[in-house]
Amino acid sequence: MPELRKDYVTDTWVVFSTVRSKRPGEFRFETKPTNPEKCPFCYGHEHMTPPEILAYRKDGPRDSSGWWIRCVPNAYPALVAEGEVHRRVSQLFHSVNGVGAHEVIVETPEHDARLSEVSDFQMQEVITAYKQRYLDLIRDRRFKYILIFKNHGEKAGASLSHPHSQLIATPIVPRRIMEEVTAVNRFYESSGGSCLYCEIIETELEEEKRIVAENESFVVLSPYAARFPFETWILPKAHEMAFEDITDEERTPLARMMKDALGRLYHVLNDPPFNYYIHTAPCDRKETKYHWHFEITPRLTETAGFERGTGFYINPVMPEDAAAILRGKVKEAPR
Amino acid sequence: MPELRKDYVTDTWVVFSTVRSKRPGEFRFETKPTNPEKCPFCYGHEHMTPPEILAYRKDGPRDSSGWWIRCVPNAYPALVAEGEVHRRVSQLFHSVNGVGAHEVIVETPEHDARLSEVSDFQMQEVITAYKQRYLDLIRDRRFKYILIFKNHGEKAGASLSHPHSQLIATPIVPRRIMEEVTAVNRFYESSGGSCLYCEIIETELEEEKRIVAENESFVVLSPYAARFPFETWILPKAHEMAFEDITDEERTPLARMMKDALGRLYHVLNDPPFNYYIHTAPCDRKETKYHWHFEITPRLTETAGFERGTGFYINPVMPEDAAAILRGKVKEAPR
Repeated sequence: MPELRKDYVTDTWVVFSTVRSKRPGEFRFETKPTNPEKCPFCYGHEHMTPPEILAYRKDGPRDSSGWWIRCVPNAYPALVAEGEVHRRVSQLFHSVNGVGAHEVIVETPEHDARLSEVSDFQMQEVITAYKQRYLDLIRDRRFKYILIFKNHGEKAGASLSHPHSQLIATPIVPRRIMEEVTAVNRFYESSGGSCLYCEIIETELEEEKRIVAENESFVVLSPYAARFPFETWILPKAHEMAFEDITDEERTPLARMMKDALGRLYHVLNDPPFNYYIHTAPCDRKETKYHWHFEITPRLTETAGFERGTGFYINPVMPEDAAAILRGKVKEAPR
Repeated sequence: MPELRKDYVTDTWVVFSTVRSKRPGEFRFETKPTNPEKCPFCYGHEHMTPPEILAYRKDGPRDSSGWWIRCVPNAYPALVAEGEVHRRVSQLFHSVNGVGAHEVIVETPEHDARLSEVSDFQMQEVITAYKQRYLDLIRDRRFKYILIFKNHGEKAGASLSHPHSQLIATPIVPRRIMEEVTAVNRFYESSGGSCLYCEIIETELEEEKRIVAENESFVVLSPYAARFPFETWILPKAHEMAFEDITDEERTPLARMMKDALGRLYHVLNDPPFNYYIHTAPCDRKETKYHWHFEITPRLTETAGFERGTGFYINPVMPEDAAAILRGKVKEAPR
């Protein structure tokens, strides 16, 4: 069973997952298999993954072809579904056993597709699958947080090139989420009831210079203190705590803004490796103030000793410049 | 002038340094120049760096050859030495102008040397140079923190292969340091005056299984919640707040433990890319409790969307296993 451990000193948690381990000599940088013949996410290879959790297909049996979205357990899970959550504290050692969920959402049957160029329908179905997996897992009281994320490109940690996202449910609320929730709650108190993210959206729309795109329901921007060159956020304009509350009416504008943002990054940066993830409220929403959003972080620079030692980031691109480049240089993403 | 900006929401700071910028198309992964003919840190190329700040040489003029340690300003500084520190807060936007220092410590004139195999004398001189630069810069009241760090290997952010460390002085205390200082202060209060790091050393020496090496003054260990495979810390056994207080008597055992730790990582992991950095007390030591140490973090895995989204780390190697491998498999580092 994997184990989560807290640093002696700070609130940094580490997932120890030896199923993902290698011997010392094998810690070399992997080449990713791009051969569709051996791809577990292509039609006809459904037997190469664990049995599916969810699939969108017209008809046909489970684990057959014909699907357009397919969710399966990760074959090398960082956390495992069985067992109760036990927290152990002894002297300086805090740990939690590694109970959780680790799933893969295959975004399309097309091995070489790009998410920015799939149809609006397909992108909406990805969003629908995200929501459906959230709503299913949130009922499991062992899970405190559910993160959906995407790794694209070898440099961004993707080991398979076939378009897919992942979901990890964790037995504790992650540190970055806690920091955001704490700040949002503090702002709510000090401002007499305003949402910090609503303020960000309002202020940035007024200032204009960091806005990349917007439509009726979502805004795409380069955040003021972007940690990474061309870091891009997508935020719902309406005050909404949790992604999984997204309505059917919001799916189309979100799908369009996701394709738009990813398409701009693709064209301007020539298919960069990137990660994105959804920040939503913790599973237990009691007294939580929050405002869900996407963060897209291209991988164009290496973090090094200064970043590891300080927790600072060095970004060579001002977000105002990144926004101007993303706004101006690219033709409209396909609709 | 570079600019430091704080995230709207959390205490994450970002250094915007456009001197290090490139155009969008140029964000590709660089090959590092390893050609000694063009290396600015080799003998005879002293004119290729800014004028030296410090050098250890028997005789000869400034910026000539014959040195065995040489410190120069970084030619592409993340922060600049001129100007006063101004903090600006307006609505959601917090910034500090990018006043600081960014220096390079060339550790040896030998282009292809490895720090784990230099002589004890040479390693001691590296430590002496670190200390001397700390003591010089700490007098500058604009600087709140001084981080000395090393990037080894392209994957770890090194753009030149000639052995060198770097120093960055910042106008604010970095987040990771503040977290550690806060935890150490809290432990001091709650324990009636004990040092958290002293407790870690005592407990780990008792438990033994995460200890890699020790000598009269220093202990090398795999921390309980190592964020990275084979992450390794070096801690002084005596309670010492600041690295720059290191005595002449401690330099030899520290040099030996540094060579020992780096040598073990070199042999077990086949010259891995790595970063190390020194965590010492903030420049203003008023009421600070702290215990300085080195953290060495090999770069064997990629962080991906889960780590970026949560602040968690995934480590496939238990620190007990890493310590056993580092303890057992390698011959003594050369003395």
